[in-house]
Amino acid sequence: MYHLDPNLKIPLHIQLYKAIKREIISQHRVGDKLPSIRKTATLYHLSKTTVEAAYAQLYAEGYIESRARSGYYVSELYFDAFEPEETSGATPAKITEPVRYDFFPAQLHTEDFPLKTWKRLCTRETNASLDFGAYPDGQGEEILREEIARYLSHSRGVRCHADQVIVTHGFIDGMELIAKLGRERYQRFGHELPGYHIAHKIFGAYGYRTTPIEVGRHGLRLEKLRHSKAQVVYITPSHQYPTGVTMPITKRLKLLAHIQSIDGLIIEDDYDSELAYYNRPIPSLQGLDTTGEHVAYVGTFAKALSPAIRVGYLVLPEWMMAIYRKSYDAHFARVSLITQRTLAAFMHEGHWDRHIRRTRILNQKKHQAMREALIRHLGDTFRIVTEGAGLAILIQPRASEFDWQRLKQVADEKRIAIYLAKERSGGEFEAARMGFGGFRLEEIDTAVAAFAECWMKIKD
Amino acid sequence: MYHLDPNLKIPLHIQLYKAIKREIISQHRVGDKLPSIRKTATLYHLSKTTVEAAYAQLYAEGYIESRARSGYYVSELYFDAFEPEETSGATPAKITEPVRYDFFPAQLHTEDFPLKTWKRLCTRETNASLDFGAYPDGQGEEILREEIARYLSHSRGVRCHADQVIVTHGFIDGMELIAKLGRERYQRFGHELPGYHIAHKIFGAYGYRTTPIEVGRHGLRLEKLRHSKAQVVYITPSHQYPTGVTMPITKRLKLLAHIQSIDGLIIEDDYDSELAYYNRPIPSLQGLDTTGEHVAYVGTFAKALSPAIRVGYLVLPEWMMAIYRKSYDAHFARVSLITQRTLAAFMHEGHWDRHIRRTRILNQKKHQAMREALIRHLGDTFRIVTEGAGLAILIQPRASEFDWQRLKQVADEKRIAIYLAKERSGGEFEAARMGFGGFRLEEIDTAVAAFAECWMKIKD
Repeated sequence: MYHLDPNLKIPLHIQLYKAIKREIISQHRVGDKLPSIRKTATLYHLSKTTVEAAYAQLYAEGYIESRARSGYYVSELYFDAFEPEETSGATPAKITEPVRYDFFPAQLHTEDFPLKTWKRLCTRETNASLDFGAYPDGQGEEILREEIARYLSHSRGVRCHADQVIVTHGFIDGMELIAKLGRERYQRFGHELPGYHIAHKIFGAYGYRTTPIEVGRHGLRLEKLRHSKAQVVYITPSHQYPTGVTMPITKRLKLLAHIQSIDGLIIEDDYDSELAYYNRPIPSLQGLDTTGEHVAYVGTFAKALSPAIRVGYLVLPEWMMAIYRKSYDAHFARVSLITQRTLAAFMHEGHWDRHIRRTRILNQKKHQAMREALIRHLGDTFRIVTEGAGLAILIQPRASEFDWQRLKQVADEKRIAIYLAKERSGGEFEAARMGFGGFRLEEIDTAVAAFAECWMKIKD
Repeated sequence: MYHLDPNLKIPLHIQLYKAIKREIISQHRVGDKLPSIRKTATLYHLSKTTVEAAYAQLYAEGYIESRARSGYYVSELYFDAFEPEETSGATPAKITEPVRYDFFPAQLHTEDFPLKTWKRLCTRETNASLDFGAYPDGQGEEILREEIARYLSHSRGVRCHADQVIVTHGFIDGMELIAKLGRERYQRFGHELPGYHIAHKIFGAYGYRTTPIEVGRHGLRLEKLRHSKAQVVYITPSHQYPTGVTMPITKRLKLLAHIQSIDGLIIEDDYDSELAYYNRPIPSLQGLDTTGEHVAYVGTFAKALSPAIRVGYLVLPEWMMAIYRKSYDAHFARVSLITQRTLAAFMHEGHWDRHIRRTRILNQKKHQAMREALIRHLGDTFRIVTEGAGLAILIQPRASEFDWQRLKQVADEKRIAIYLAKERSGGEFEAARMGFGGFRLEEIDTAVAAFAECWMKIKD
C-alpha cells in the first residue's frame, strides 16, 4: 500500500507516481504487471484521471511499458530509463527590488579596488612557469607566505616566519583549521560576548565546549575568563567586534600571562587593523608572546583589499604547525595558484603598502563624512559609541526607549539596508552599525539623510 | 625557580633567557632587581658565561636595563620593548634533489592545461562589472553554478538545478560541509575499505562514529553496510578508489533502496568520471535517486582540468540545502570571484566540453603507452589489477612474496617517486599505482624502464 495524503500540497497524481516509481526502483521486478487504472483508483479512492496521470508520467519516463489489450508492466531498467528529468540547470530569475542604500559594515567600494594593477599582474603571472598539472603547496605558495610574514612582521609586530603562515580562503576556513589542530590539546573554548557570532559555532561543531565571556570597557573581562576555565579564547583585541574597544597593553600582558600559565591558546583576530584613523595601528598581541606558543593569529585581505579575492591567512605556533604538517589539510591548497601568485607580486612590488595607505586615507575621509552627516541629519538624538577605525561608526539613540526592530522595518520599507550589532554579536549591546566603506565619498550625505528619515520616525 | 633541562636540544643560555623573559612579561614588576650573574650561575649550576649570554640577550631586547655599579633591573615595558625579534620572513632554501620520475596518480601535465584560453578569458572577465568591494555569493556565482548543473545533467545524468550546487575549493572543503550539514540527522558514517583515506577522518573530526565497510568484487558489500548501521555512506561507485571497480547497476539500485529505506545519505564521489577510456562514463548514482533526497554528489575540476585552480563542487539534496542556507557557510564564497567567472566563461563558451574530449583522448594515449611500457619492461612478472580509467594503472607482482616497502626504498634511492595503494586506502589491498597523467606521452617508456630496474630487483 502506498501512503497518499490529500492534505499535502503535492497533487495526488504526483504522490502516486512517486510512490510507484520508488517501488519499481527499490524492488526492481521486471515484467510485473501493474494493477489496472480502475482497480488502483478504487483501492486509493482516487479518480480515474488521477491514476491515469500518474501512469502516463511513469510511462513517459520509461519506468513502465504498455502492452496492447493487456495493461502496464514494469520495464527492464536500463540506464536510459534513468535519464534525468528535464532540468535546464537555470534558476528562475529572482525579482527583488534593489536596495537604495546599503550600510553593510564590511564592504568596500569596487572603484577602490586596484583593478588595473591587479589585472596586469594577473596576466603576467599566468604563464607557463606555473605547474597547472600538480597540486600546489597546501600551505600556500612560499613567495606569498614570505610576503605575508614580512608585512605582518613590519606592520603588525607579529613574530613569524613564512613557515608558520598558512594561506586560507577566509575567516571560517582559518578558524576551522585552528579548531581541528587544537582538538587534541583543548576542549574548552571561550569567546567574547558581544562578539563575532560565528567563532563559537565553528568550535562547537568540532566538539568544543563553548562559553561566552563578557566584554567590558577594556575588552574581555579577565576574571570571567579565568572563571570559565576556557583553554582557547577567541578575541579581537585591536578593535573589538562590535564594541570597538582596544584592549590596553597591561591587560594584554595579563591575558597573555594567564593563557601562558594554563598552557592555553589565544586566537587573535586582527581583521581590520589596517584601518585606524586616529592613531597608529596597535601592534598585535601575537608579538607580545615571546614564547611563540600561545597565540594563533588570524588575518584577512577582505577588509583592506577585497572580499572578492577570498584570501586570508593564519600565523600558527610551531607546535600547531607540527600537527598541521601531519594532517590531510597540509596537502591541499585553499586558494587558486594564480590568485596566490598575483597577490604575492602585488605585495612584493610595493602595491600592497601603497594600497593600504591609499585605502586608509580614503576611508578616513569617508569616516569623517559619515560622522559629519550623522551630526547634520540626526542632530542631538544620537551618540557615537565607536569610531576611528574599521569600516563603520556605531551609534545609539539618546532616548532611553528605542524600538530597534521597527527601525529595521521602516528602513526595509524604504529599501535601506541597515545592520544592528546584536544580530551578529549576541549579548545586550545594541547599536546601528553605520558602514561607510561601500559608498562613494560623495554619496554618504544623501544615504545618511535617507536613513535619518527612518531614524527620526522611531525616536518620536 | 626556573626549570632548565641540560638534556634538551635548546642551549642552556637560551632556556634561561626564555624563562626570565616569560617571568618578566607575566609578572611585570618594573624596577625589580635581577640576581647577580654569579648568584644565578651558582643557583642553577651554570657557568658565568651562560648566564651572561642570557642577560645580554634580555638586555639587547630591552627587557632589562643595566645600572652602573648596581646590576640589572626589569625595564618598564612599553610597546617598543616588544618589537619582534629579527625575522626576515624568509625561509632557508630547502636543498633536496629533484625527483627524476614521478608516478603520482592524481597529476596532469602542465602543458595539457589550456593556458592561452584561460588567460584570455581571465583577462576579459577581470573588469569593472565585477564588484570587488562586496562579498560574492557564498554558494558560488550563479552563472558558474548554472554551467556546472547543465554539464552534470547532460554528461553525468545528475538531477540538479543551479540552486543545489555549491562551489567549493576542493574535496576536503566539500566533505567538511556535508559533514556539518548532516550532523543534526546522522551520527554514523560508513566508508569503503580500501578507500580514500581522508573521508572518515573528516567525518570523525565532526563527531561521527565511523566504520569501514569492505569493498568486494562489485564494490561495497551491501550486507556489511546493513550490518554496520551506517546512515551516511561515502562511496566512489563509478571508479572505486583504489581498486577501480565499477558498481553494477543492480547493486546501485539495491544500495539506493537500502539508503532510502533508512532515510540515509549516500555521498557519491565522482572524482574522475570524465576519464574513461574503454567505455562511456557510467552515469551517476545520484541520477538514479528519483526521490532527490538521498545522494550528495561530490565533484572536482582537479582531475580533468587542473588541481591548481582549486575548484570543486557539491550537488546537495534540497533538505540539506535548506540547512545550508541558514548556516554561516552560506555567506562566504570559497573561491575567488575571478576564478569563478573565468571558469564559467570557459564552460559557457564550449571550451570545457572540448577540453574534456581532448584530455580524454590524450590520457587514453598515455594510458595505452603506460600499458605497453609495463608489458615491455616488466614482462610476465606483473599483472594489471585496474585499468581503463582515471590517471593510473594499478599493478601487482605475480610472485606471491613481494616486499613493497623495499620497492619503495629502492625507488626512493633512485629518486623515483612511486605510490602504493595501501598508503592512502587502508585495508589489505596493495598495488603500485602507476600514474601516467603527469608525464609527456613520449616520457612514459623511459620512466617505466627506470621503474622496472627497481621492480626487477625486488621480485628476485
